Amino acid sequence: MRRDRTGVALAIVVTASALATAQSTPSGAGVRVTDGVSYAASGQANRPANYREWVYLTTGLGMTYGPAQPAAGRPPLFDNVFVNPQSYKAFVNTGRWPDGTMFILELRRSVANASINNGGFTQTEVAALESAVKDTQRFASTGGWGYFEFGAPPKAVDSAAPQPPTASCYACHATHTAVENTFVQFYPTLFEVAREKGTIKATYDPNRKVQ
Amino acid sequence: MRRDRTGVALAIVVTASALATAQSTPSGAGVRVTDGVSYAASGQANRPANYREWVYLTTGLGMTYGPAQPAAGRPPLFDNVFVNPQSYKAFVNTGRWPDGTMFILELRRSVANASINNGGFTQTEVAALESAVKDTQRFASTGGWGYFEFGAPPKAVDSAAPQPPTASCYACHATHTAVENTFVQFYPTLFEVAREKGTIKATYDPNRKVQ
Repeated sequence: MRRDRTGVALAIVVTASALATAQSTPSGAGVRVTDGVSYAASGQANRPANYREWVYLTTGLGMTYGPAQPAAGRPPLFDNVFVNPQSYKAFVNTGRWPDGTMFILELRRSVANASINNGGFTQTEVAALESAVKDTQRFASTGGWGYFEFGAPPKAVDSAAPQPPTASCYACHATHTAVENTFVQFYPTLFEVAREKGTIKATYDPNRKVQ
Repeated sequence: MRRDRTGVALAIVVTASALATAQSTPSGAGVRVTDGVSYAASGQANRPANYREWVYLTTGLGMTYGPAQPAAGRPPLFDNVFVNPQSYKAFVNTGRWPDGTMFILELRRSVANASINNGGFTQTEVAALESAVKDTQRFASTGGWGYFEFGAPPKAVDSAAPQPPTASCYACHATHTAVENTFVQFYPTLFEVAREKGTIKATYDPNRKVQ
């Protein structure tokens, strides 16, 4: 049997071209992941049950900025960041987030001196679950991103409406983020990806603080 | 077409029985995962390339115990813990670790006041990669577990021999851990699993420090 190599080559070119188009769309609107955000019948975003099995991006302790300020006399909070796996893979390949991307910011309380630990901090219960979602059509009026608060288990809500456009998250994520509306400057492995892919925003200033 | 429902039911019973047997083996030796440790031809354990896509368990900052002591004048280290996905799922189902389980302890340097952050710490480059592996046959002489040091990128080694049995990790992991030889007391979601499954060791004392 004779393989039609011209046909195969053409198919490869077409596929590569289609991929290049999708990947070069600044908004990422040409791609949509299936393992990120889902919406309830009400239109609210569902709190994902399995986010602890998503891809881990980073953790901070006691982060202090704008609305995030330490509570006097209480141990600092850890913040763990997760993203759905398909979006992680897309970012590794392109340096951009596809539509449907969902981040979970899991805030956990900390404790000193637990078990063998004589210094520093380890993690305990969840204090809050927050989320950022990219959906360029649904959230077109707020730059393609919506921000959500699900509360803390056991009282966490199953789904939530986006925070109002006046919430401080919208302006902060638009202004202070390294890639699109995301704080990739705090995700060590993905910041390297963004450098290689050239997707760090020209407006990103690593020294700028929240006013 | 008539489905043989008896046969289907029998198959389900047999499968369930096999699972129950495997899961009730205290050492977990009846199960072996395929996405955890792998060994080089030399017999050394390979450093996994994709551990950042494994399941995240917890992070501490500035943890201080036995050999882990703060370096004077330097910011504290973060330690992020990952485990291979099949072993995570097995633990969620049984409260025990199957053979082939591999943990990665990723130590990262911290920085204060990066970008918008006015307090607390965020993560930067990897300072060290360490590992614990369960392999009840290969590491039978050290309680079924081996401990490895892979160094830090870009100088991390591709594979490593287990630390000598006299290394402090062996005695500490045998004595101070909540479940098998693992510090599940620091993994908030899995500690709850272990409570439910009844796999916390009778010898576990949450107040005991390393001598």
